[in-house]
Amino acid sequence: MTKKKPTILVVNDDGITAPGIKVLIEEMQKIGHVVVVAPDSPQSGMGHAITIGRPLRLDRIDLYEGVEMYKCSGTPVDCVKLAVNKIFKGRKPDVCVSGINHGLNHSINVLYSGTMSAAVEGAIEGIPSIGFSLDNFDYDADFSHCRSYLVSITKQVLANGLPKGSLLNVNFPKDEAKGIKICRQAGGHYVEEFDERVDPRDRDYYWMTGRFELEDRGEDTDSYALSKGYVAIVPTQFDMTAHHVIPELNSWGFDS
Amino acid sequence: MTKKKPTILVVNDDGITAPGIKVLIEEMQKIGHVVVVAPDSPQSGMGHAITIGRPLRLDRIDLYEGVEMYKCSGTPVDCVKLAVNKIFKGRKPDVCVSGINHGLNHSINVLYSGTMSAAVEGAIEGIPSIGFSLDNFDYDADFSHCRSYLVSITKQVLANGLPKGSLLNVNFPKDEAKGIKICRQAGGHYVEEFDERVDPRDRDYYWMTGRFELEDRGEDTDSYALSKGYVAIVPTQFDMTAHHVIPELNSWGFDS
Repeated sequence: MTKKKPTILVVNDDGITAPGIKVLIEEMQKIGHVVVVAPDSPQSGMGHAITIGRPLRLDRIDLYEGVEMYKCSGTPVDCVKLAVNKIFKGRKPDVCVSGINHGLNHSINVLYSGTMSAAVEGAIEGIPSIGFSLDNFDYDADFSHCRSYLVSITKQVLANGLPKGSLLNVNFPKDEAKGIKICRQAGGHYVEEFDERVDPRDRDYYWMTGRFELEDRGEDTDSYALSKGYVAIVPTQFDMTAHHVIPELNSWGFDS
Repeated sequence: MTKKKPTILVVNDDGITAPGIKVLIEEMQKIGHVVVVAPDSPQSGMGHAITIGRPLRLDRIDLYEGVEMYKCSGTPVDCVKLAVNKIFKGRKPDVCVSGINHGLNHSINVLYSGTMSAAVEGAIEGIPSIGFSLDNFDYDADFSHCRSYLVSITKQVLANGLPKGSLLNVNFPKDEAKGIKICRQAGGHYVEEFDERVDPRDRDYYWMTGRFELEDRGEDTDSYALSKGYVAIVPTQFDMTAHHVIPELNSWGFDS
């Protein structure tokens, strides 16, 4: 008896033509039936944005032979919502994989990242979901050392499932990895440096740049594991309640 | 001896001309020195998006007499980053308040909401931060019953601070509230219903609509408190690690 091949939804935030998603598609084809729904333009830094004030486009595209692919005019989260509702029509894929992002999404980047937000949306929809990111922003980054991990991690998730309300944030070091570490999200933030310029009409404008600052010396974090050459996997959740703060707030004696 | 008046950063996602932010500005002026940095256009549903592929504008605007106000071409999170870096220049406001949003941000809406993402960004920057939202999407919503709560909750935060890594998500019922409940984020998701149309050039397009579906029968949630007529306050955090899932993943015996 042959087991039915799993259906795999592939999304990203760098856009449907990015090399990172091509690597992910190639590896997922070894595991199951692949359906790709990805933005028609780069959507880095879009976080969990959805498109509500403008209409959305979703069009079939034949980019890689034999792969069912759709490009979407919206955000990475829009892609997941359209995939579930208009392509899968209520049936659910067996797993949703997002990436491979050109650039890390460790620590606080989980919030800004369209790659991770697409995976979070998959998890909200009840689909076991994984975001993959590489420590290399280059267009022609070398993803070869990620390939076997993409397959083994996705197979583990297909075999074991993931606890309700959780997903995986997987970050790859730039070069060959020493192995996998299960981690927590490191504490950190960006120090912004706005590059101030003047346009041809003499009006000021700014380019946002920024430098990540790690605030966390823990050796159980994603940032630490990456710095030591490991693949960092953080189980991630979308319940943002600070449960440990509830007793303190109750002690404040709120009144209006 | 008089205590120095606190400095209050006011942001929102409905845009600088929205009635909700006007009410928030008016009440914050009773407590401290107000600086407003808000989007120059509506930014609902922008989540934690930041603007990295386009330049940003930040311009002084004299909308309400005696109030220091700036409009920004970017997202709610951009507004907070620009405020901290270009207006406060490294000094930090004593508190960051976001809203009042026209529409609830209970349950999973915390992820999609620009209002809440601005408050989250304030907290990431180390500023005690609060997001305020009302159960009324109307432009001319009645915010009058929120006013005393805005003052009392903000005063409590100024007096007590908030634990590092946490902020408050405050949702007001549509009408006069019975009091305040400290809650956790309810489990829920949106069931999307894409409205499919055809444009004058015979191409399909979609409008995203959706219906919130509560999955959580707990009586300690924000959704429950609001349904019973209370102001719901959820202490919120940006560590998205599913700490309870780490032991399970460690038991999987990952290899590549």
